[in-house]
Amino acid sequence: MIFRQLFDSESSTYTYLLGDESTGQAVLIDAVMEQVDRDLQLVRELDLTLTHVFDTHVHADHVTASGVLRTRTRCTVVGGVGGAACADVQVRHGDHLRIGALDFQVLATPGHTDDSVSYFLGDRVFTGDALLVRGNGRTDFQNGDASQLYDSVTRVLFGLPDTTLVYPAHDYKGRTVTSIAEEKRHNPRVAGKSREEFIRIMEHLDLPKPKKLDVAVPANRACGLTASSPSSSPHH
Amino acid sequence: MIFRQLFDSESSTYTYLLGDESTGQAVLIDAVMEQVDRDLQLVRELDLTLTHVFDTHVHADHVTASGVLRTRTRCTVVGGVGGAACADVQVRHGDHLRIGALDFQVLATPGHTDDSVSYFLGDRVFTGDALLVRGNGRTDFQNGDASQLYDSVTRVLFGLPDTTLVYPAHDYKGRTVTSIAEEKRHNPRVAGKSREEFIRIMEHLDLPKPKKLDVAVPANRACGLTASSPSSSPHH
Repeated sequence: MIFRQLFDSESSTYTYLLGDESTGQAVLIDAVMEQVDRDLQLVRELDLTLTHVFDTHVHADHVTASGVLRTRTRCTVVGGVGGAACADVQVRHGDHLRIGALDFQVLATPGHTDDSVSYFLGDRVFTGDALLVRGNGRTDFQNGDASQLYDSVTRVLFGLPDTTLVYPAHDYKGRTVTSIAEEKRHNPRVAGKSREEFIRIMEHLDLPKPKKLDVAVPANRACGLTASSPSSSPHH
Repeated sequence: MIFRQLFDSESSTYTYLLGDESTGQAVLIDAVMEQVDRDLQLVRELDLTLTHVFDTHVHADHVTASGVLRTRTRCTVVGGVGGAACADVQVRHGDHLRIGALDFQVLATPGHTDDSVSYFLGDRVFTGDALLVRGNGRTDFQNGDASQLYDSVTRVLFGLPDTTLVYPAHDYKGRTVTSIAEEKRHNPRVAGKSREEFIRIMEHLDLPKPKKLDVAVPANRACGLTASSPSSSPHH
C-alpha cells in the first residue's frame, strides 16, 4: 500500500492519499481545494489513478476539493449520509468501500457534525474531527451533539484495537498521528471522564466561530463547487 | 517500534521520535528548541525514556533542542564529525547507533553542510537537508559544496533500496515523506541531471540568507545553549 499524509498549513488540515499498488487505484481523504494541484501531481508521480475521494464530514474550516477532483479525474465522491447531497455515494455505519485491494470499513462517528464518519483500514483509522490528537472537534454547530460524540469516541473508536493508528483531519501543534491506546489514556477530555464531564467540557469551550464557516459549509454541501467557483462546471 | 513525525510550523522543521518498545528507549532526530515541552510530553505519554538526540547537521534555520534535552533528560547528543563540538558522540560514515533494538546506520551525506549525516534504519532514512521531497538543501554556506551533495544524493542515498522511505528535515508544501524511488524519478534537480547541471542549478538558486543564520549556527555549534540562554547550565 502507498500511504502519504499531506498538510495544508493555512487550515491545518491533513489530507491522506492511499494507493493500492496492485491495481494502481487511489483515494484521497479530506482533500483541500487549495491543494488540488499538489495532490494530483503526487498521484501522477506515484503512477496512481484517483478513483475516489472520501470526506469524513461537511467541513467548516476549509473548502473540500472533492467536486474539483471529480471534474478533473472523474473520481467517485464519498461522504456520510446526511452530509453533502452532491456525493456520489452516501455511506452508513458498516458499509465497505473497496479501492483495489484496500477494504475500508465505514464507522458512523457523529457528534462533531451529524454526518461525521470515520474510515477504518486494518491498522489505521481516519477519524476526521471526531477524534483528534489529545482532542476532538467542537460540537456547537452543524447539529453537533456532545453526548453523541462521547459515544462515537468511547464506544465506536475506542472499540478498535489499541494499536490502531489514528489519523485525524487536523492538528495545530505539529503532531501527525496518535493511537487508540494513547487517546484512551491521555485524551484530556475523554480519558477517565464521564459523559457528563465531557458534555460540560464541550459546553464551556467558548470558541470563536470558525472564520470560514459561512463560506465553507454551503460550499462543501455542494462538494466545494459554488455558483461563483470557476470549476463549477457540471460533472459527468 | 514507535514512530512519530512532528512538525514545527515556524521553521517548517520535521522532528522524529523513534522508540524501542522492548527497552523503552527513545531518540529524537532534529529536535527544535521551541518544541521541547511538546516532545518531552509525548515521550512521557508513550512510556519512553529519551536516551539520545541525533542532529543531522548544524542547522541554520532553527535552534536545536539537543542541549536543553541533555540538561533535562541526561540523554546523549549525537552529531556528525566536524559539526557541533558539544555533541557527546561525533559519528562518521558506517558507524552504528543502537537504541535498544533499533540499529541506526550513519551515512555521511555532506554537501548542504560539511557535517551532514543521514541516519538509516531498515525501511527508512532520515536525510536532514541532504535530500528533501523533490528538492535538497542549499549549498552556499557552512562549507556547502554542490558537487559533494550530488555524490551524497546520487551515490550514497540513491544506493539505498528503492522502497526506502525518506524522511526529510523540512518541507514547505505539506508533504511529509517520499521514497528513494520517487526522488530518483521526480527530483527536479537530480533526476536525469548530470553533476554539471546540478551544480549550475545550485549556483543559480539566488536564495535570500536564512533569517536565523547568524543566531542559529553559533547556537547550534553549542547544542542550542548560548551564553544568554536560560537553560545554559552545565550538563552532567
